[in-house]
Formats: sequence, structure tokens, C-alpha cells
Amino acid sequence: MTRITDISVHDVRFPTAAAGDGSDAINRGDYSATYVELGTDGPHTGAGFTFTNGRGNELTCAAVRALAVHVQGRSLAELFADPLAFHRSLTADPQLRWLGPEKGVLHMATGALVNAVWDLRAKVEGKPLWRLLAELPTADLVACVDFRHIADALTPAEAAAILDKGRTGLDQRLAMLDRDGLPSYTTSVGWLGYPDDKVRALARAAYADGWRAMKMKVGGDIADDVRRAALIRAEIGPDALLMMDANQVWDVDEAIANMRRLANADPYWIEEPTHPDDVLGHARIQRAVAPIRVATGEVAANRVIFKQLLQAGAIGVMQIDACRVGGVGEVIAELLLAAKFGVPVCPHAGGVGLCELVQHLFAFDVLRVGRSLDGRMVEYVDHLHEHFTDPVRTRGGRYVLPEQPGYSATMRPESIARYAFPDGPAWR
Amino acid sequence: MTRITDISVHDVRFPTAAAGDGSDAINRGDYSATYVELGTDGPHTGAGFTFTNGRGNELTCAAVRALAVHVQGRSLAELFADPLAFHRSLTADPQLRWLGPEKGVLHMATGALVNAVWDLRAKVEGKPLWRLLAELPTADLVACVDFRHIADALTPAEAAAILDKGRTGLDQRLAMLDRDGLPSYTTSVGWLGYPDDKVRALARAAYADGWRAMKMKVGGDIADDVRRAALIRAEIGPDALLMMDANQVWDVDEAIANMRRLANADPYWIEEPTHPDDVLGHARIQRAVAPIRVATGEVAANRVIFKQLLQAGAIGVMQIDACRVGGVGEVIAELLLAAKFGVPVCPHAGGVGLCELVQHLFAFDVLRVGRSLDGRMVEYVDHLHEHFTDPVRTRGGRYVLPEQPGYSATMRPESIARYAFPDGPAWR
Repeated sequence: MTRITDISVHDVRFPTAAAGDGSDAINRGDYSATYVELGTDGPHTGAGFTFTNGRGNELTCAAVRALAVHVQGRSLAELFADPLAFHRSLTADPQLRWLGPEKGVLHMATGALVNAVWDLRAKVEGKPLWRLLAELPTADLVACVDFRHIADALTPAEAAAILDKGRTGLDQRLAMLDRDGLPSYTTSVGWLGYPDDKVRALARAAYADGWRAMKMKVGGDIADDVRRAALIRAEIGPDALLMMDANQVWDVDEAIANMRRLANADPYWIEEPTHPDDVLGHARIQRAVAPIRVATGEVAANRVIFKQLLQAGAIGVMQIDACRVGGVGEVIAELLLAAKFGVPVCPHAGGVGLCELVQHLFAFDVLRVGRSLDGRMVEYVDHLHEHFTDPVRTRGGRYVLPEQPGYSATMRPESIARYAFPDGPAWR
Repeated sequence: MTRITDISVHDVRFPTAAAGDGSDAINRGDYSATYVELGTDGPHTGAGFTFTNGRGNELTCAAVRALAVHVQGRSLAELFADPLAFHRSLTADPQLRWLGPEKGVLHMATGALVNAVWDLRAKVEGKPLWRLLAELPTADLVACVDFRHIADALTPAEAAAILDKGRTGLDQRLAMLDRDGLPSYTTSVGWLGYPDDKVRALARAAYADGWRAMKMKVGGDIADDVRRAALIRAEIGPDALLMMDANQVWDVDEAIANMRRLANADPYWIEEPTHPDDVLGHARIQRAVAPIRVATGEVAANRVIFKQLLQAGAIGVMQIDACRVGGVGEVIAELLLAAKFGVPVCPHAGGVGLCELVQHLFAFDVLRVGRSLDGRMVEYVDHLHEHFTDPVRTRGGRYVLPEQPGYSATMRPESIARYAFPDGPAWR
């Protein structure tokens, strides 16, 4: 009967902008987190966060404070007796909903809180989150999904059937993940802020470390993009996968034209070719660039956008984010939608702690929902793991399954203190 | 050469929740405004705001403060020398954009700031905003539009052609608006919080006052909705228009089924039948319920959503909001898109001061973009006008064209002081 007795919110910012890390066609900043700690009447605390790009992290912090009333004083037993009611208390607050609905600052704050509640529950039950989810009864998982506004694409009965099916062969899939790890790809080779020599050296080093899938940023000058793509392809050879990420800068027709030029480098997917809200645009691009796959999702606002991307055949790879949407329950909805439509899920990671979180979601997907590794990889970015108490571990280009109880979301107290904005020593 | 020398942000909240005003299937709260005042080195100040439902108004206030750096210290001449660069400084801030992009708290704050800048410009030029816009050279209007991500539906050349055409007959249309006022409809008859007797009395009174188009809220219990619809239709007779507004609560199939039952009352449109992000869902509903029109837009996040609603044939009426999107420039883009696709625009109003703003946008649309009154009406809600220095005026169910310079956005200082949250006398 763990009860949440206090909620603290930390504005944590890492000064990454100066190094060019994480620079792409549209985002630049200091990788930051709105970090939530749930104090309880028991021995455990819950940790959750949402990732931001620095400036504005105070907005998601303030949004967590505005939403915290729906978590403060509640027990885990109450929250999970009716997880849908809990979810809607956050997403359908009759005064706050106008500020979204279910998108942007408010929804990211919802994710931070919900993630912290799940972290707490997993710690109380002594399991890593992926195991907690994979072992839950089908009805308990279905109860976490808000089917409102997605029922035309996925019914509760269909969701239950997918999850029931996921029990078959689960032990074998778990043995495989235990033995081989989680397939992944690296994004650390081709940020726009890096010069050619650095890109070449990083691609070579990544290949030597065992990575057989790498992602580069595109969306700057197209001639530059073409040159860098050729350069990376030359380093990694014809068999490794090369993914491209335009971070939304192109118009629909521009995306189609540019991918014709970039096709020479044999890209596996083009990620975020245009505006993340443009379902019809992604659908047109996907039809034009096939067999190159369109991938998107890190900035997809909610399950309603994902539903439409799938209904429209707009994506060949679905990228979920652990912190953009309303937390674990909404991600379960999105994984189920992807399974229903037969599209593989390759979670977005990087930022602050996103790798730590999505490894759990990925393992749950493989074990219980998507039930396969075909076309599935987790993004990997080699930044900021040192600030977490249970950082990701990789071996030969694959994540090692996390073992500690919880959602791997807990940040080191000394990191929180040092990078607290604006008063921590790193910012003074 | 007016320069913006200081920016003040006021958290203003009116205690409307207790009266049931503004209650619908999904929103309830204290009508509030994030109110922005631009001080200048000249005799004028600029006023702009975004509307919220009370709790959370501190978030839009904080977002205005985060964005204010892009306005502080700039001159009107600079901002309008390259209005697209100004727009993108707000919507594509490399650190803040992650919190949207172009949606929710951040985009509403963008709207408040941009609206204040336009109010200031209109005051400096001594014209009501509608006149300023209607008289601008085509190139100046086109320069305000961000075509990125909508160029597949509307090119700069197409936009220019629409605006050039809008010069023809402008004087006649202006004479008509001057003489007859702006056609409008009233939403004050059927909030969900009102009992049947009050609804009946309000419908009768509105009809007596000259209104021939009224909107009721639906989306509660369907049997209640059917009963209330019949009751209003009986009061207003067969010829007046009855619109229905579900405020997003239905699933796609539920919307279709419920509109079959409500069709008896001969609704003209069904507004927000489902989730505002669901372009494909709205398209399915529109096909199923025709000739009843689907209307939406007050919570459409940005021009990319509007573009798709039009491309998909998902709406028969487009509802723009003055404060949800990124201000006047983005609304111009949306009006142009609607004109391109031949869909009439009926602006969303109500809230705090939305009637005051949208009358300008509506007049500009009729004069220069849509060039017709066919199917066009402005929403009217009889709340909170007394707090503005240039409140809307109506005559026989129509708005009277505003005449004072500016965007009618200026709130009375005594109202700002009295309803300041949490320290104003009304809240202490």
C-alpha cells in the first residue's frame, strides 16, 4: 500500500550545446530534463522525467507542478485499481486540457509523472519495468489503454488478443534477448555540427565496435548531405544499414526530391522528412520513396497521430518516445497499434536518459506485443548515461537487458545537484 | 520607428466556473487570459492575449516570458521588414521548438505575442486591424505567411493570386459590412451546465433579439442531447440554423451513430465531433453525416492540421481561432488555405476576448480572401465584453464593424487589476 507523500520537481540542464552534440537541422540546445521524484511512505521512491532542449525546461517543470495534484497523496493501489481514470485525471483535467489537448508541454509533463509512477511500482514489485509489463495479465495491460479516439483502429478485444498471443513463446524470446541483447543502432556518427573528418572517424569507430546500423542527420544543404552520406557509406560498406534523419525541415515535395538524390547511399529509412503533424504528407512521401521506409514518432504528439500514420500507411517504421506522450500507458497503446498494423517499432532515444527508458519499452514490445525482432532496433546515443544510477550497457552494438528494479530512470543525486538550473555549480 | 521597450505579462482569471458558463462536454473552468502589454518608446502600447480555462494560465504566462526575448527591444519596422523571420524566431527557436512544435502552451504564447505586435502596429497606423490587413499590398501579406510545411497545398503564387483577386469588389463588400454588420450566431443558448428551462428561455430570447443561428452543446448523454435539440428546434422554428458542438468527446464511429439520432433536429453543422488531431477521423465522419457539415478548428494546433483537414475533405466549415495558433500571420495562412479549397470560415469565439479579436479576422476574410458571406458567420458569446476598452457591439444578431485603431485587444486596467491571479481583489 505504498502512498505518494510528496512530489519534487528538478530543473536539470546539461551544458551540451557548446560541443555541437545533438545538433540537427532544427534542434540545438542544452540537453535537459524535467525530473520528478515521488517520495512515499515506504522504502521506495519513484523517478520519472521528460527531456527538453534547455530553455523552456521551466515550462515542463511548471506543468508537472500543475498536474501533480492528481498524483499527490494517492496510493499505488488506488492508481492501478483504475489506471484509465488515473490517465484521464491528467489528460482530461477540465481546466488544463485546453492547453493541449494531449500535446506539447502539458503532455510531456504528464509523461514525466506517469513514468515516475510506473518506476515506483516496478521498484515496489522488485522488477525491471520490462519484466513487470511482460508478466502482467492481459486485462491489466488493456486497462491501462485509453481507447477513446483510437477505437476505430484498435478495440479492447483486439488489444487483448494481441497481448494473449504474446504469452506464446515469451520464454524463448526472453532467452534470446538475454543471450543476444537488444539490437540497436547508433546516432552518434553524424550530427550536423560535426566536421567531415569527425564523421568519418566516428563511423569507422562505430563499425569497429560492432555497430551495423548507423544514423546520420540530413536536412542542411542537400549537396552537403549527399557528400556526407557517401562518406559514411564508404566507411561502413554496403551491408550496414544507414538511416537518415531530416528532423522535419523539408516540405513534402522537397522531401521526395531530396530523397531521390540521397537514394544513392542506399538509406534504410528517412526519419522525420516533414512536419510531425502531417499525416497525409508522410503518406505521400512514403508512397514516393518506397522501398526506403519513412520513420517518425519522436515528436508525434499522441496516440491519435500514431493511429493515423498507421491507418494512412504513412510509415514503414514507427518510432515511439518514452517522454513525449503521456507515459507508459499511452506507449502501450501505441505498441498495440503498431502490432495491429504490422509496423515494426524502433524507439527514439538519445537526449537525457531516453536510452535508459526505451530499452524497457522495446523489450516489452518484443516479448509481449510485436513478438519479433524483425526490423526492430533501439536507437543508441552515447551521451549523459553517467548521470543515471542504472545506465544502459551495450555489448557489440547491442543493449544488454537491464536487471535492476524500476524504469532505469533514477538520476544520481550529485548530478541533479550539480546541473540544477539556474543555481547548481555547473550553471553558476 | 516605434520600438518595443518592455513586455509585461498578466495572469488574469475571471471566476466563471461557478455559474456553469462555458461548460461543455470536456472543458470547465474559470475563463482566463494570458495578457501581454508591449510598452514602447512612442505614444502607443500593444495588447495581445491568449485564452485559457483557468488553471494552467501560469504556464502560458511563463511561455510568453520565455519567448519575449524575440520581441524585446525590436522595432515595428524591423519586425515587419521580414515578418517570416520574426514568426520563425518564435516558432523555430532551436531550444524551445522541442516543446511544441507549433502546438499547445508554446504556440498559444506565440499567438499572444504576435497578436500584441499586430495590435501595436494597427494603433500606430491608426486603423482597426481588419482595415490595416485589407489594405495591405499583396506582397506584404504573403510575406507574413510561413509556407514551410504547407507548400504542397498552397504556394506563394497561389496565395498572391487569391489576395490580388480580393482587391476586386472590396469597396462594395466593405459597404455591405458597414451597412449590414457581420453575420453571426450565438452559443449562449445551450451550455451543458444549463437546465432545460433556461435553455428554452434563452433560445426564445435569442430568436426575439434577431439571431437566426444558434449553437448547442452535445456530447453528454445522447438521450439528453436529443431532447434538448428538439426543445431548441421547437423554440426557433424550422428556418433558423441549429449548430451542434460535441467538444471532441466522441469516437469516430460514435460520432457517426450519434449524428444519425440528432439528425431529426436538422443540424447545420456538427462541431468537434472527435479528437482535434484526427484528420482521417473527421474525413470519415464528414462522408458519413453529409449534408450535415463537419466543423472544427478551435483546437486545431496549427496550419499543418488545417491543411490536412482541407486536403482530406474532412470539413465543410473551417473554424479559426485567434489565439490558439501563432497569431495573425498564421491565421492569414489558414484563411488562404480555406479560400484555396473553397471552404467557408466561421471563426471560433467566446472565451475571454475572442469575439473582440475574430471580428477583425472575419472582416479581413470577407473583404480580401474569401470574398463572400456565403456560409460565413462569426460565433458570438455574451460574456466578459465589459472588460475590454473596445468591446464588440451587436445589432439584430450581427456584429457591428469595429472602428477604433488596433485589434480590440486592450483590456481595462481596472479589470486586469481586479482579476489578477492570485493577488487581485477578486481572488483574495
